[in-house]
Amino acid sequence: MNEERGLQEVKKKRVRLVVAYDGTNYHGWQIQKNGITIESELNHTLSELLREPIQVIGASRTDSGVHALGNIAVFDTVNPMPAEKISYALNARLPEDIRIQKSEQVAEDWHPRYCESKKTYEYRIYRGEFPMPVKRLYSLFTYHSLDVQKMQAAAAYLVGEHDFKSFCQVGAQVESTVRTLYTAEVEEQGADVVIRVCGNGFLYNMVRIIAGTLMEVGQGKRAPEEMQDILAACNRQVAGPTAPAHGLMLMKYEFL
Amino acid sequence: MNEERGLQEVKKKRVRLVVAYDGTNYHGWQIQKNGITIESELNHTLSELLREPIQVIGASRTDSGVHALGNIAVFDTVNPMPAEKISYALNARLPEDIRIQKSEQVAEDWHPRYCESKKTYEYRIYRGEFPMPVKRLYSLFTYHSLDVQKMQAAAAYLVGEHDFKSFCQVGAQVESTVRTLYTAEVEEQGADVVIRVCGNGFLYNMVRIIAGTLMEVGQGKRAPEEMQDILAACNRQVAGPTAPAHGLMLMKYEFL
Repeated sequence: MNEERGLQEVKKKRVRLVVAYDGTNYHGWQIQKNGITIESELNHTLSELLREPIQVIGASRTDSGVHALGNIAVFDTVNPMPAEKISYALNARLPEDIRIQKSEQVAEDWHPRYCESKKTYEYRIYRGEFPMPVKRLYSLFTYHSLDVQKMQAAAAYLVGEHDFKSFCQVGAQVESTVRTLYTAEVEEQGADVVIRVCGNGFLYNMVRIIAGTLMEVGQGKRAPEEMQDILAACNRQVAGPTAPAHGLMLMKYEFL
Repeated sequence: MNEERGLQEVKKKRVRLVVAYDGTNYHGWQIQKNGITIESELNHTLSELLREPIQVIGASRTDSGVHALGNIAVFDTVNPMPAEKISYALNARLPEDIRIQKSEQVAEDWHPRYCESKKTYEYRIYRGEFPMPVKRLYSLFTYHSLDVQKMQAAAAYLVGEHDFKSFCQVGAQVESTVRTLYTAEVEEQGADVVIRVCGNGFLYNMVRIIAGTLMEVGQGKRAPEEMQDILAACNRQVAGPTAPAHGLMLMKYEFL
């Protein structure tokens, strides 16, 4: 029997995680020399749990302070623990600001960055005379009034396939700055204004630059039609400022 | 001229504050020997700002971990700073998890606990398979399913004038345990269930015991009609458990 076991092939499997986190206390997703990141917490905790060195691959390397309801990570393991059980075991060991929402086995060659997907982000703005403490970690405070209808009209110009170079941080290394937005909506939720974008991919800081630009439209500093000129310019200088990280939330990934 | 100023009567005024806070990092409202409280932060910051010893009187002495959008505090000062400006000056000095929403002058004898008022509280529950990090500070997580209609039916029994002794923590010193609830609603907001109660006053831990009892109804452990028996018993042992503090939010005070 020992012999049989020895001859048995070690079965490697690929596991996909849906990862939710409060980004407040992390230096973003990607491993860094200084500071704890979501990736380093996952690698460390998975390696302990599965008793082998684990390195996850993340779908979206969110910035410091950005939150997620459903980022995606994959890793390979030879540990026989059923993929579906890993979420429970992992959540028992992770800090409470990171929680795995789902774990499941996927094809051995499945890679979160080399497959078609729809990503949804929300950027949340809270309008008031003064900041509201219980909202401070998950929304951008503004005392400016915002014309939500104008913001909606401006957002509509972004829908479709465009070169989003004007909405990409300078210096980002990408082959192409063309992306497709399926939807771009601006919604009032009480005192909050929520910008929701869904697309096949997002450039570095793209949602935050869209948010910063739409806020200028909402404040009357730009006309909604200017979005066409900003897109056509292919020049980061022409768009608005990059809105701060803490208002941004990666909502979900859908794989096509 | 100096003489004139010397003869001028020192004008004392009473100022009312609407106070919002994230209770996560505080040992509740009331000053304690060990640990920072909302009251101690306000006294300390106001005394520095107005250059005289200030002691606020709070309307609701919320427990450790409970949040507020609109608690009320009053204090007297001889400082000539206009009451309306105090909110701005105070917010510039307070930690970011406390923010004054409004400051205004009130009558010299106005007292937040000796006047008729309507108070609104919300208790928030998040239902999911796993906790959601960005919701963990402001809602109670449960993996149980909850029958919201049954919870609504149960809450309706609480509306009106009742002896709420069964919903009051044992040992609380109060003259009477009779209170009036104007409304008691249970609302679904996506994956959240929100219990909203509005009344003329609340006993110690009353909203949290109501929430704990309604959750038992939602889980099918009790029938909605049992609320009548619980009220009639006037016995804390008969009601459900006290739900944890962090799901509770003091929404607003309305003075009649």
